[in-house]
Amino acid sequence: MNRRLEVTYVVRCPATEIDSRATALAIEQSVEMPLSAITDPAVLEEVVGRVERIAPAGDGCFAVTIGLADATIGTDAGQLLSMLFGNSSLHDDLVLSDVVFPAATAAAFGGPHHGIAGFRERLSAQGRALTATALKPQGLPAATLAALAEKLTEGGIDLIKDDHGIADQPAAPFAERVPRIADAVQSAGARSGHPTLYVPNLSGDLDRMRTQVACARAVGVRAVMVAPMVAGVATVHTLVAEHPDILFVAHPALGGASRIAPPLLFGRLFRLIGADAVVYPNAGGRFGWTIETCRALATAARAPWHGLAPSLPVPAGGMTRQRVPELLDVYGTDVMLLIGGALLDAKEKLVAATADLVAAVHRHDYKK
Amino acid sequence: MNRRLEVTYVVRCPATEIDSRATALAIEQSVEMPLSAITDPAVLEEVVGRVERIAPAGDGCFAVTIGLADATIGTDAGQLLSMLFGNSSLHDDLVLSDVVFPAATAAAFGGPHHGIAGFRERLSAQGRALTATALKPQGLPAATLAALAEKLTEGGIDLIKDDHGIADQPAAPFAERVPRIADAVQSAGARSGHPTLYVPNLSGDLDRMRTQVACARAVGVRAVMVAPMVAGVATVHTLVAEHPDILFVAHPALGGASRIAPPLLFGRLFRLIGADAVVYPNAGGRFGWTIETCRALATAARAPWHGLAPSLPVPAGGMTRQRVPELLDVYGTDVMLLIGGALLDAKEKLVAATADLVAAVHRHDYKK
Repeated sequence: MNRRLEVTYVVRCPATEIDSRATALAIEQSVEMPLSAITDPAVLEEVVGRVERIAPAGDGCFAVTIGLADATIGTDAGQLLSMLFGNSSLHDDLVLSDVVFPAATAAAFGGPHHGIAGFRERLSAQGRALTATALKPQGLPAATLAALAEKLTEGGIDLIKDDHGIADQPAAPFAERVPRIADAVQSAGARSGHPTLYVPNLSGDLDRMRTQVACARAVGVRAVMVAPMVAGVATVHTLVAEHPDILFVAHPALGGASRIAPPLLFGRLFRLIGADAVVYPNAGGRFGWTIETCRALATAARAPWHGLAPSLPVPAGGMTRQRVPELLDVYGTDVMLLIGGALLDAKEKLVAATADLVAAVHRHDYKK
Repeated sequence: MNRRLEVTYVVRCPATEIDSRATALAIEQSVEMPLSAITDPAVLEEVVGRVERIAPAGDGCFAVTIGLADATIGTDAGQLLSMLFGNSSLHDDLVLSDVVFPAATAAAFGGPHHGIAGFRERLSAQGRALTATALKPQGLPAATLAALAEKLTEGGIDLIKDDHGIADQPAAPFAERVPRIADAVQSAGARSGHPTLYVPNLSGDLDRMRTQVACARAVGVRAVMVAPMVAGVATVHTLVAEHPDILFVAHPALGGASRIAPPLLFGRLFRLIGADAVVYPNAGGRFGWTIETCRALATAARAPWHGLAPSLPVPAGGMTRQRVPELLDVYGTDVMLLIGGALLDAKEKLVAATADLVAAVHRHDYKK
């Protein structure tokens, strides 16, 4: 059966040229050669991209929907990105905006093993939003990172991740820091009576990441972070498949400039390849994303979608205690607010500041 | 010793704000938290990014050069991209424009094993430009691709690569098509007396690609193509290290939208991780790149650089027989012109059209 993905690009183009542009796009993302030179009827019928729809999108742009044959992709996540946007990424006047997958294609990729429910179960946290922070800055030795993690755990935060810049550097190599930080978090969590998840950052190639996951698992850490656009989406898809007991947190590094609409890239494609949670820039933070973009991303991550588990949205950056009520009103309970620098700025009052943030989230009145 | 990379971003920013923006950028690409919350003097001194220079770049932009500590990167190619542009990719008003590496850092990454000389040696081709084409369209069965490759080889082309959309699909799986195409190319090459290189396209995760390289090598194919932004740069860096006898051709898929200046991404960073050749959009082709961008890319790929082998520039797209003289005058001899669709449009006259293109390249008079 010849199933097609419906792929929408928003193209800046004069109305007089949009028809030929749409056809060119359909060719670029499939056979990439003049149709006149193709003689195989099966290719013409089943492989060449089809212009399904062209609609005005305002502001001198058009939404062009192309039907791309599922058979060109299979379940290779890298091939998916290539066929959706490989060559078209080289045009500077279009954005990959949306993809509608056949049910069987989405199911074949699989999505998250755990999703939001996985975090709630590990944290024994139902009916409320979740909280997270990051160990910073990179360059600190493992012992200092562990001491920091201990304080954050005492404050009652749900999740502590490595700063995404902490990889395997000499200052705090993975194999040295992860056991120390895990031990500090587990001990402090036992004392506080509240579980806190530690999420180390993976780096390197697939084999290095496998070794790192094994190292983490050996000390009871069963959640990891990875940046799919850095590691390669196929790398992440494979890690998810090989480690069904692990929670995967996706970091957006290198994904911002992709000219793939953020709700699609971070909310849907990362979810498709197995991200249980997706970190992304919070509106009003250091990055210029609007609240509409953030809402759309959270919707894409969480909405019912071909039976795939929902991914936990993790807005980050520019997060402060003061913004908690506003953000929870936007996102509801199925969200994890990530606050980094603002918390660390509390210095010797870190435990109290963490506890204060956590209380604000736990006690938020959604009915107001 | 604390070595620094000098990293230049071109930032669109009012002059009244550029100082604070530059400082914010230096922090974003290093410690990613308020400096006031950092107490470790070693981190402040050695890890925090340093604003080295700010210069007007015209058109409301500034070139901001930041010194980033080499110790944050090591020789992890993924970590390199993360530290250069991980979070900053999420800002839409800046471009990563240039990176000056310490000699030891560049040497540690290693660069190409073969470079331009590797192609010349395999092709017994000195003192002239090289020619390439692509097997298209995807969806054709292996036997048809092999017959096409045979004709192109008869015509005397130097290199035949898979279309980048041909991965491991049922129409022509890697393990079936590569031996058939390799056999056709080798037989036709023996008859014509002219060696032609076949370059299959790798897909999937690192393990799949290793299997594919082994399959290719087993039938005498010692050159492969891969898209580093799709596969992950660490994946490619590892493959290069593990296969020192293989020529690696880098494809630009998914790299266009990165907001990393093309000469830096394709000419320098791909070279750094080991690409012996770099395919990129030809000026005047289907993509909007200028001839200045293409020249700068070719320069970055070929110029003397910390002892790393030069990468072969492979301009592609919109290439025709008619454009050969103009392009050879731009690029000189150390270039491989990739012509795809236009050649295939010759249909039953394919061998003659190929021979005609090849002759034009071999006979080009550079002294005019």
